[in-house]
Amino acid sequence: MVVSGPSGVGKGTVVEHAMSGRSAAARRLRRSVSVTTRPRRAGEREGRDYFFRSPDEFKRMAASGELLEWASYLGHQYGTPREWVDRQLEAGYDIVLEIEVQGAMQVREHRPEAVLVYMLPPSWRALRQRLKLRRSEAAEIQQRRIEVATQEFEYVRNYHYVIVNDRVAKAARQLLAILSAERARVGRADLDWLPAENSD
Amino acid sequence: MVVSGPSGVGKGTVVEHAMSGRSAAARRLRRSVSVTTRPRRAGEREGRDYFFRSPDEFKRMAASGELLEWASYLGHQYGTPREWVDRQLEAGYDIVLEIEVQGAMQVREHRPEAVLVYMLPPSWRALRQRLKLRRSEAAEIQQRRIEVATQEFEYVRNYHYVIVNDRVAKAARQLLAILSAERARVGRADLDWLPAENSD
Repeated sequence: MVVSGPSGVGKGTVVEHAMSGRSAAARRLRRSVSVTTRPRRAGEREGRDYFFRSPDEFKRMAASGELLEWASYLGHQYGTPREWVDRQLEAGYDIVLEIEVQGAMQVREHRPEAVLVYMLPPSWRALRQRLKLRRSEAAEIQQRRIEVATQEFEYVRNYHYVIVNDRVAKAARQLLAILSAERARVGRADLDWLPAENSD
Repeated sequence: MVVSGPSGVGKGTVVEHAMSGRSAAARRLRRSVSVTTRPRRAGEREGRDYFFRSPDEFKRMAASGELLEWASYLGHQYGTPREWVDRQLEAGYDIVLEIEVQGAMQVREHRPEAVLVYMLPPSWRALRQRLKLRRSEAAEIQQRRIEVATQEFEYVRNYHYVIVNDRVAKAARQLLAILSAERARVGRADLDWLPAENSD
């Protein structure tokens, strides 16, 4: 599952909340940790929030096919380690990638079975206010985030689902409902076992 | 939403269980009551289980366009009153039709926004056992039900979702998850309000 949406919309908070649930869908859920070239922010931890790598190391990983998708965002690069994702999927987990639109379109192309969710703020005003609380960031970077978000919105129709994050618990429930429903999709469900196992 | 599946699989029980929940999706859910020409069974009530009508009256309703779909099943006719469904949908309810495959295909054609769910038994053996508990029915009718169910199974790929009813509570949860997820589908969600309401 891919979750995209404007910076500051609360993707991480919603995914964490969904993972903390006790349902089967919640327990199957794992977050992918991205590789990035951007500097570490205060409170961020290597391997939990991101794998922080130099631009050279990132370039090497992309060139050698170690990244499932990668994209630039505000001058830094972000990518998803392919091997970890594949191992988790094979083990039966549902993996969430919190990634930008460019990366999401790459995932959609290479993994047509991926489910793409776009998370929206209840309003642009709410989003601006959230970003302003990030005091560590310069006003111009915040402004740039808003611009990118507005442009990205054009891509919403390339996603499968839209969730409005007006309440974290509600948005998390919707995320889990989408995961449950998608498991029941004809074409995804394994129908072939039925005639065989049931012929008696 | 259309819910089909072999006679005896427990469609009604699962839908009732889903409707008894307290979530927003559960409270939005209503069951459509079909019109039928088949005789009333012990315990069935006019207007709750079916609207029982004569073959002539049924024919008149079908001819005058009062039925959203109709189909024959084991020598009797079944149909969905169109006006009630439309009124409920306009009022914001999600309507469940528990109908056969022929009728489901009519709904799919006339209402492309409909979500089609096929409910399967955990095994054919379990289904046979359930039907045998219906002591009111002759063995040959039960046998015929099994045959129809086996033929119908060919149509599963025309549905959107498959639910295996191994536990009623679990199947009901899946039904509700599908309803929630479908509300968030791009193309179904009303995205046009966003730029307008949020431009500030």
